[in-house]
Amino acid sequence: MSRFQFEQDCEVRDIALLYGVVAGDHFPLPRCAALIQDADSHDEVVDLSIYCGLDRRYEEYFGIDFWKIFAKPSLNEFAALPVEVRGIFRRTLISCYKNRRIPQVCFLTEYTNHLPMDTREYVNFYGSEHHALLSAYLRGEEMPDNIRTSPAYYNGCPSSLIVSEKPVQRPHGITRDANNNLHFGPTQKLDFEMEVGFYISKPVPRGRRVPLEDAIQHIFGFVLLNDWTARDMEDYERKPLGPSQSKGAVV
Amino acid sequence: MSRFQFEQDCEVRDIALLYGVVAGDHFPLPRCAALIQDADSHDEVVDLSIYCGLDRRYEEYFGIDFWKIFAKPSLNEFAALPVEVRGIFRRTLISCYKNRRIPQVCFLTEYTNHLPMDTREYVNFYGSEHHALLSAYLRGEEMPDNIRTSPAYYNGCPSSLIVSEKPVQRPHGITRDANNNLHFGPTQKLDFEMEVGFYISKPVPRGRRVPLEDAIQHIFGFVLLNDWTARDMEDYERKPLGPSQSKGAVV
Repeated sequence: MSRFQFEQDCEVRDIALLYGVVAGDHFPLPRCAALIQDADSHDEVVDLSIYCGLDRRYEEYFGIDFWKIFAKPSLNEFAALPVEVRGIFRRTLISCYKNRRIPQVCFLTEYTNHLPMDTREYVNFYGSEHHALLSAYLRGEEMPDNIRTSPAYYNGCPSSLIVSEKPVQRPHGITRDANNNLHFGPTQKLDFEMEVGFYISKPVPRGRRVPLEDAIQHIFGFVLLNDWTARDMEDYERKPLGPSQSKGAVV
Repeated sequence: MSRFQFEQDCEVRDIALLYGVVAGDHFPLPRCAALIQDADSHDEVVDLSIYCGLDRRYEEYFGIDFWKIFAKPSLNEFAALPVEVRGIFRRTLISCYKNRRIPQVCFLTEYTNHLPMDTREYVNFYGSEHHALLSAYLRGEEMPDNIRTSPAYYNGCPSSLIVSEKPVQRPHGITRDANNNLHFGPTQKLDFEMEVGFYISKPVPRGRRVPLEDAIQHIFGFVLLNDWTARDMEDYERKPLGPSQSKGAVV
């Protein structure tokens, strides 16, 4: 069987494929799905577990039970597969869609989105020197020179990650008013920044460093997110350990 | 059935009971266990799943499948039970031990320790004003006044948590030497502080604050830990987002 058998009839222009996790009335346990955005027609959502249960080529070719991997409430197992395997799967799925070779029973019409990955850790970086410079300016400080040489980040709370369109609750905390008096209560300065998140998906053994040229094996994909911050709480708590409660409510 | 039936013959003096997760040659999948330290004899380790599978009083009384809860590789499910339930279980187990009512098959002689809980988030606080004052002094800074009014903490990496007696790898990072030159390499100033960790075990719905008087429902127990820090990396990276890589290798 040729290595590129899955790819030979690919025609991926004008089609975007987004992975996600969804649940619905007929499948209350969240499971993996793919949103296919086709410039020539309306969007379609494919239940990946049903699809791979019917089309066993993937299983036969790779020796991997794709239908089991996709019957889970997160994409973690799929995301940890080698990037080449995921690439062939992706191109073949798009090709099958273009050639109308996905059975109708695989398409979902009613569903709700869930978090796509079971995220156990996340770190929040400055995206650029300009971002760090602006933040320092807003704090009335100089930009530390480590920004130019090493990643500047803090560890976030994975429990603050919520899926789009869920309500955002105003966090409570301690803030200082213009007269230097302290107050406990809901933030008066809730702010958000639109950011890009990357899913790092392939496990790395403890103490191992990843060479730059292997980075592509570790990045599953990206997601847009809103990083919410209670600025008044952040101003009060930031020194000396960095932001914590002001960033802990929702991302 | 009386509420205190399990407690009536308790005699807990001189006995300590520590929960943990262990694996061994005959049970390679980690599972829950209790270490009983008895001033009058040597320590004993009880396989809690086998024990609760044989003594069904707990199941009958509480309507909870304790043997299933303890057959897991973490104490999370047990820890999330109401503190009253855990208290009765604990006192009854100690009483049974004192009265030699634990079958011999429940005792383990060879085992290795694993992490007791599946920890998805952890935060690291200043333990006291003195701790914060000393840290500020060592940095050559004033102690921020938020230390006296609000919890000062940073989010740690759960993946840095390892069980006792595992080797500690020296983290690599960027440091600045006395001539202001930057270097990438293993830390030259690896330091540790002995700290006390508390396991917060009962899930709290998003956005809910826990009243102080309910705190006892949420604390499962405590553990001693070493908090390792690469001080030279910390000095370089600390501003403005707090410690990150210098604290990310091992706890």
